[in-house]
Amino acid sequence: MARNIQSLERAAAMLRLLAGGERRLGLSDIASTLGLAKGTAHGILRTLQQEGFVEQDENSGRYQLGAELLRLGNSYLDVHELRARALVWTDDLARSSGESVYLGVLHQQGVLIVHHVFRPDDSRQVLEVGAMQPLHSTALGKVLSAYDPVAHSEAAEGDRKPFTKRTVTETDAFEGVLALTRARGWGSDVEETWEGVASVAAPVHDRRRLPVGAVGIAGAVERVCEDGELRSELIAAVRDCARAVSRDLGAGRF
Amino acid sequence: MARNIQSLERAAAMLRLLAGGERRLGLSDIASTLGLAKGTAHGILRTLQQEGFVEQDENSGRYQLGAELLRLGNSYLDVHELRARALVWTDDLARSSGESVYLGVLHQQGVLIVHHVFRPDDSRQVLEVGAMQPLHSTALGKVLSAYDPVAHSEAAEGDRKPFTKRTVTETDAFEGVLALTRARGWGSDVEETWEGVASVAAPVHDRRRLPVGAVGIAGAVERVCEDGELRSELIAAVRDCARAVSRDLGAGRF
Repeated sequence: MARNIQSLERAAAMLRLLAGGERRLGLSDIASTLGLAKGTAHGILRTLQQEGFVEQDENSGRYQLGAELLRLGNSYLDVHELRARALVWTDDLARSSGESVYLGVLHQQGVLIVHHVFRPDDSRQVLEVGAMQPLHSTALGKVLSAYDPVAHSEAAEGDRKPFTKRTVTETDAFEGVLALTRARGWGSDVEETWEGVASVAAPVHDRRRLPVGAVGIAGAVERVCEDGELRSELIAAVRDCARAVSRDLGAGRF
Repeated sequence: MARNIQSLERAAAMLRLLAGGERRLGLSDIASTLGLAKGTAHGILRTLQQEGFVEQDENSGRYQLGAELLRLGNSYLDVHELRARALVWTDDLARSSGESVYLGVLHQQGVLIVHHVFRPDDSRQVLEVGAMQPLHSTALGKVLSAYDPVAHSEAAEGDRKPFTKRTVTETDAFEGVLALTRARGWGSDVEETWEGVASVAAPVHDRRRLPVGAVGIAGAVERVCEDGELRSELIAAVRDCARAVSRDLGAGRF
């Protein structure tokens, strides 16, 4: 049994390796990065390829992630209760705010975007479902860190990278931000992750009152803020949306 | 090594099982469906859970697909050259046609949607990236079956299910449809998959002239057709788009 589990762990490590950084890697790179014999690595890669989890480029012989992951990722979304309950409310929020809406959940050391509604204008936008955002600097991440103890540990113990001059990285200051988030009931990010982008988010709770995700809007700081502060009608709209989704998930009103 | 590969194949079979049909399954169901001892199945599931590929519902103890699949599926798209090259052209096609645009590739026994541009109106639409479409009845599937020998085998040997009264299922008639698709250079589906929906698609070729995917539009038959025939300006727009993407992939003009 231990053997079986080891081969699965190694396969998962290969997929993680191919998902980050270089993304197209040869057998030798994969084997040496993971500290495996080439024969062992090749056996795992061959099986992953046969199952559609990796693909091999015919010309270079390099490996990359495979199409079966996209199919399975889509199936994951199909059974995602939080996302299903949030579809209508997030659409309404995008319409009323005029900004992009994101729904995120804790995954590993970050926020996994499980739903993204485009800003309702004619601009070209890139879908970010499946993308990760940092816990310590984004509005979604701060909300999760403030309400979910597991997210808090990840953010508190993790590496809080400074993305801009405004990113809060120091421990006491960061804990202060989370205390403020809890006190107000919403989190914000004014140019702490991306220059020129501000966001606001609020927590979604389920029927057991557990924080299961966060919903928020993000947009150009010129639109989302006024005199350096987040516009209060946007904060209200985000909180209304989070409450509506929570109610749909069975959370009590009191 | 053989052992390692077997545990990976079993893990992949579990993920496929969780991606179809019931989607939330208990340990006993999984073990008996795959013909595994409960202890063996549990060892694999526990490792898959630890790696984020499956999640276990706390109340019911049932397993479902995990968030790591969404993250990896998104990373797969990030390195998808065809999709990257098609982004701008498909956006233009949605604007000019006023309909939804889909980009599909052969995956297993069907068409995997790797890009979907919403119809440019205010209607609520569900993103279908990662969804599968049948090869034998959709415009995308017919184009792939007509141009890609592997897709052709899958469609010819597979089970051609009648979705509507208009689905072509009989072997000679189906081969006739593919011959027509090749002769015209585009494929169509007028209510052969979904009642009320018509679609048209054209092949995308790479620098080696290999058919690497298909691009097409789909919409209400009342808009897309005129007197029972696909509107010629829509066919032209789809073929223009497919040619533009092919050129971007390095396909020659002649």
